[in-house]
Amino acid sequence: MPEKMRAVVKAEAAPGARLMIVDVPEAGPGEVLVKVKATSICGTDVHIYQWDAWARSRIKPPMVFGHEFAGEVVQLGEGVTTLKSGDYVSAETHIVCGACYQCRTGQAHICGNVSIIGVDRPGSFAEYVIIPPENAWFNPPDMPPEVASIQEPFGNAVHSALSTDLAGKTVLVTGCGPIGLMAIGIAKSAGASAVYGTEVVPYRLDLASRMGPDLILNPRETDVVSQIMTATDGQGVDVVLEMSGDPSAIHEGFAVLRDGGYAALLGIPSGPIELDLANEVIFKGASVYGVAGRQMWKTWYQTRALLSSGAVDVGPIITHELSLEDFEQGLQLMSTGQCGKVVLHP
Amino acid sequence: MPEKMRAVVKAEAAPGARLMIVDVPEAGPGEVLVKVKATSICGTDVHIYQWDAWARSRIKPPMVFGHEFAGEVVQLGEGVTTLKSGDYVSAETHIVCGACYQCRTGQAHICGNVSIIGVDRPGSFAEYVIIPPENAWFNPPDMPPEVASIQEPFGNAVHSALSTDLAGKTVLVTGCGPIGLMAIGIAKSAGASAVYGTEVVPYRLDLASRMGPDLILNPRETDVVSQIMTATDGQGVDVVLEMSGDPSAIHEGFAVLRDGGYAALLGIPSGPIELDLANEVIFKGASVYGVAGRQMWKTWYQTRALLSSGAVDVGPIITHELSLEDFEQGLQLMSTGQCGKVVLHP
Amino acid sequence: MPEKMRAVVKAEAAPGARLMIVDVPEAGPGEVLVKVKATSICGTDVHIYQWDAWARSRIKPPMVFGHEFAGEVVQLGEGVTTLKSGDYVSAETHIVCGACYQCRTGQAHICGNVSIIGVDRPGSFAEYVIIPPENAWFNPPDMPPEVASIQEPFGNAVHSALSTDLAGKTVLVTGCGPIGLMAIGIAKSAGASAVYGTEVVPYRLDLASRMGPDLILNPRETDVVSQIMTATDGQGVDVVLEMSGDPSAIHEGFAVLRDGGYAALLGIPSGPIELDLANEVIFKGASVYGVAGRQMWKTWYQTRALLSSGAVDVGPIITHELSLEDFEQGLQLMSTGQCGKVVLHP
Amino acid sequence: MPEKMRAVVKAEAAPGARLMIVDVPEAGPGEVLVKVKATSICGTDVHIYQWDAWARSRIKPPMVFGHEFAGEVVQLGEGVTTLKSGDYVSAETHIVCGACYQCRTGQAHICGNVSIIGVDRPGSFAEYVIIPPENAWFNPPDMPPEVASIQEPFGNAVHSALSTDLAGKTVLVTGCGPIGLMAIGIAKSAGASAVYGTEVVPYRLDLASRMGPDLILNPRETDVVSQIMTATDGQGVDVVLEMSGDPSAIHEGFAVLRDGGYAALLGIPSGPIELDLANEVIFKGASVYGVAGRQMWKTWYQTRALLSSGAVDVGPIITHELSLEDFEQGLQLMSTGQCGKVVLHP
Repeated sequence: MPEKMRAVVKAEAAPGARLMIVDVPEAGPGEVLVKVKATSICGTDVHIYQWDAWARSRIKPPMVFGHEFAGEVVQLGEGVTTLKSGDYVSAETHIVCGACYQCRTGQAHICGNVSIIGVDRPGSFAEYVIIPPENAWFNPPDMPPEVASIQEPFGNAVHSALSTDLAGKTVLVTGCGPIGLMAIGIAKSAGASAVYGTEVVPYRLDLASRMGPDLILNPRETDVVSQIMTATDGQGVDVVLEMSGDPSAIHEGFAVLRDGGYAALLGIPSGPIELDLANEVIFKGASVYGVAGRQMWKTWYQTRALLSSGAVDVGPIITHELSLEDFEQGLQLMSTGQCGKVVLHP
Repeated sequence: MPEKMRAVVKAEAAPGARLMIVDVPEAGPGEVLVKVKATSICGTDVHIYQWDAWARSRIKPPMVFGHEFAGEVVQLGEGVTTLKSGDYVSAETHIVCGACYQCRTGQAHICGNVSIIGVDRPGSFAEYVIIPPENAWFNPPDMPPEVASIQEPFGNAVHSALSTDLAGKTVLVTGCGPIGLMAIGIAKSAGASAVYGTEVVPYRLDLASRMGPDLILNPRETDVVSQIMTATDGQGVDVVLEMSGDPSAIHEGFAVLRDGGYAALLGIPSGPIELDLANEVIFKGASVYGVAGRQMWKTWYQTRALLSSGAVDVGPIITHELSLEDFEQGLQLMSTGQCGKVVLHP
Repeated sequence: MPEKMRAVVKAEAAPGARLMIVDVPEAGPGEVLVKVKATSICGTDVHIYQWDAWARSRIKPPMVFGHEFAGEVVQLGEGVTTLKSGDYVSAETHIVCGACYQCRTGQAHICGNVSIIGVDRPGSFAEYVIIPPENAWFNPPDMPPEVASIQEPFGNAVHSALSTDLAGKTVLVTGCGPIGLMAIGIAKSAGASAVYGTEVVPYRLDLASRMGPDLILNPRETDVVSQIMTATDGQGVDVVLEMSGDPSAIHEGFAVLRDGGYAALLGIPSGPIELDLANEVIFKGASVYGVAGRQMWKTWYQTRALLSSGAVDVGPIITHELSLEDFEQGLQLMSTGQCGKVVLHP
Repeated sequence: MPEKMRAVVKAEAAPGARLMIVDVPEAGPGEVLVKVKATSICGTDVHIYQWDAWARSRIKPPMVFGHEFAGEVVQLGEGVTTLKSGDYVSAETHIVCGACYQCRTGQAHICGNVSIIGVDRPGSFAEYVIIPPENAWFNPPDMPPEVASIQEPFGNAVHSALSTDLAGKTVLVTGCGPIGLMAIGIAKSAGASAVYGTEVVPYRLDLASRMGPDLILNPRETDVVSQIMTATDGQGVDVVLEMSGDPSAIHEGFAVLRDGGYAALLGIPSGPIELDLANEVIFKGASVYGVAGRQMWKTWYQTRALLSSGAVDVGPIITHELSLEDFEQGLQLMSTGQCGKVVLHP
């Protein structure tokens, strides 16, 4: 094991980040050290880099950040028996307590005592990262590291899309960032009879059209509500998967949701928004579900099944593979939407 | 059959209503005439009386209003075979099309082509009312008319409370108007381990305490959120049944809803409200369901089962029984909250 | 309208059937007459032809049989307003009462007062057939009659396969008769990660392999249980769709069903069978669902969605199109399994 | 800590058991030692005592048996941090692997690698018992030890009864042994509109009548099927909770299960039984669920809620409290059915 490694460090409480040479961490009792083969950039990483209000309230610099990754187990801390050197793993990034009501009743994804890799503790934008063995997920040997790395956000899309039953249903995905792109592919593979998408960034509109949708619309150029009502014979869609956090997309989603429909909300609005609960939810008899993280571990099994069987091809989604040194280029791409998923190779 | 009857008529497009002598309607083909034995006052009737924005946009005077009732079938229109004279019935007030997607897939309660008794067509604040036989519900002979009449709003409470499974769960009912009062009783009878209620009107706080709750709180006098968090050991409640439509009650409900909890929304806010979707729904992994009407006819079977078995005693809820002539007193009681359910006897 | 038509008649209480010239029926009040464009053969028709124990107890000759069909409305009885001449329809074959608990709570497919077309009343192996308008299903104009005709059995496969959520799951279909073949295609289109099938008739083994399965096995030639356990890494399948009614297939299904798995039973065993409930169901924590008919009308919407979107291609399943005169050849093919679906054109 | 303790030992591979003086076990790494305050007798213990076929294939004498208990933590093995001396606990008796698909997807109760306390490792018919801390369940301080001890079988009843939603439903419990008695109380507290029970042992018929049922029937004295059909107006029951394992009770249950009903099977038949799947399950559109163990830990939370809120009173069920020395009397009571729950105090 080398003593030093390259890592992207949130060095101080201000915008930006630095590639630094830091100590390789050592696996303590009940921990393992993973050599990172690929680590992908999440919107959360952009928030940390830009140092927005959320980041200021949560992140404690200096700290290595990044949390989506795949790699090889290279060191076992004392007492670790469930992994061995050479295992090829990714990680659930939510480290949960295992003792609370949620953890003990199949809802660990909303554990109130969660600690998140790359947010509350050192992350994966580095050559090595420490994880608890309970959070390791065994990857199939033939899954490329860049695909294995994006299973974590793919899991968010799986959790959203498969939180209701899609076979024979019409689906609208609002927001075609990486998770929205994945959701389109997942919905198609799960038997949705039609999948519509909305997005405003031309680059991503183009990507979206490559995921097999029936219709992709740009709300800046067309009347999304009227187009989707027409496409569904005036019925509206059965399911909305909200992936943007944008207030107008949220309203458009509820406007086209059919009476008795289902909306899964994943996108995080930047603040409170006005909702007409009477017309958008109550009179509609709508069901709304807030999507947090990935169901542990149902979502991961579903993710592996969809990726390993080839049901969803994430090829079009991984648009950039960069070296770790080029992390700022990756963060820049993510902040402008000129990309799908950006993967860094340490 | 007499030719004339007394009826409460929304006579003109202005606040108020009048007791008038009008023609007894005649049952046309596919209709039946019911002699009203009891008819209860809904909040909707108050809106019609007060002539608020919603009423102005929907009601076409002159028209008899009122829609909750029980009575006896006295005349059958041509082609009616499923009812006979003397049948003791109440009515589902939503007349649905039977042909739309919702109607044909078990969601008739949100039929887009609905016509509502006492709203879109003449109602039950009268000695006689016309209904389609498809909307009749057979009452047990030993159910008093005042109880049979309030099955319709009781059904709203049933639909809300039994839209999730309550055995062993903690439940908060926000708003103890008639439907909230019913919801407390239903939740207790369905095995909730604790039922909490909030209400601001002292008269109704008192009524609420008679429905068997574990704790009734007045948000004007106490910190509801902190009290309920204490009562639930910091966990929050499993289920919120929102019966008020009041923005602060809605926020209190989401504040104490535990992570992974379930909220049924029945109360209609008077306009759009600001929601912090991120913290109130998404990060919580909450499920939210909009309650419209009564599931046809699952809710009615459940209603009958809960009332006939004595599981819920609506005795404390029926606070006033008046003659039809005193309808204005009844509407006044409802608009000030100095009552539970008010029943009129024609 | 001609006065006479050709029809396949179960003429007497004995094996066999006859092509006869009979009166064209007339649409009475609340009925419509449909000119049959295609009518397909069900296993039930074979039972009627062969005059087995079930047929002897249920069928009252002389009667035209057959129940799967598509055609054009040509005559409306008095009072029919929901259809018009020229409408292109198929039919739900279960005529239900609309008044029982099951009918009124979204379970009309198990109405206890059901009357079945071609079983309890004259059927569709004829140039014309009478149906109640409530049972008509509008077909898309571009759906070929032979496809529209087999929507009814396709609906059985849809009801079975979509009674649980299949995305990312492993599925075993036991029995690859027409409905089993359809189930393979439906399961694949609904995102199953792997679909296995078993069948003993070589002709149908070959058809099954054309529906996109991952593995098709002949229990007479291989050890199905060991092969499927190997294919699922010793885990067993998540879902069994039992389409054969054969005791050994049922036992094989339960043997490979994983702990906590789900089995939908559609195939009808010819008599009681021995089940080891402890090991086949209870210790496994299995869920078992009996599939009767088609959910009205959820299944029909799903059927249309899967067929119209092209998600499932029934091309390989329709192996024979014969003229009505050749009905005995069709029944013979069905009884030997040397076919997929056999469609008759009157 | 004393060095020796009294314990009921399955001493050899033959019928019977002996009270012996054995070494107090010592808590190894990741284990805790519990001083037993109350330990109750399960039907499984009777099988072990009688040395039936199942016991012969599973139990390896000599071994202390018994598995239902409540007690106080008195010694912590190395590395145990989640418990402390003096904690008042009961235990989930299934020690699960935590790593298999079932364990990782909320179905740990059917873990394929389970090891059971008192079956696969030393049990609780003793002054002290060793458990893994993961299996400990914290009891409320005011819950009497005899009640805390029977939470484990009560959990079986909870798992069965609350595996479907009971509010407003009719329920039949077949078999009123201890778990059936509990199920009656649970079903009533969860809002069932009527609960019926069947049992053949007069002692238990009497107990059953004290749990609040609507009707208790003895199949040896009356025609259960006709009586229940009459009580349900010819409709049959919505839910069957099968607690007997007896073939005729199972058939009676399916005979009165309404079309579209739900049956939870907990009782273990002594061997394969003949089922008429067509009429008992398939044509009925029935759902059947095999109940194994307790859902971890949903069932335990529900159990605590129902017992702590007083919703279910297990007073009538605990019929005998004996000293450990009298274990043979307790086993004898259990084998003849002349008891509810028998609790031993070491």
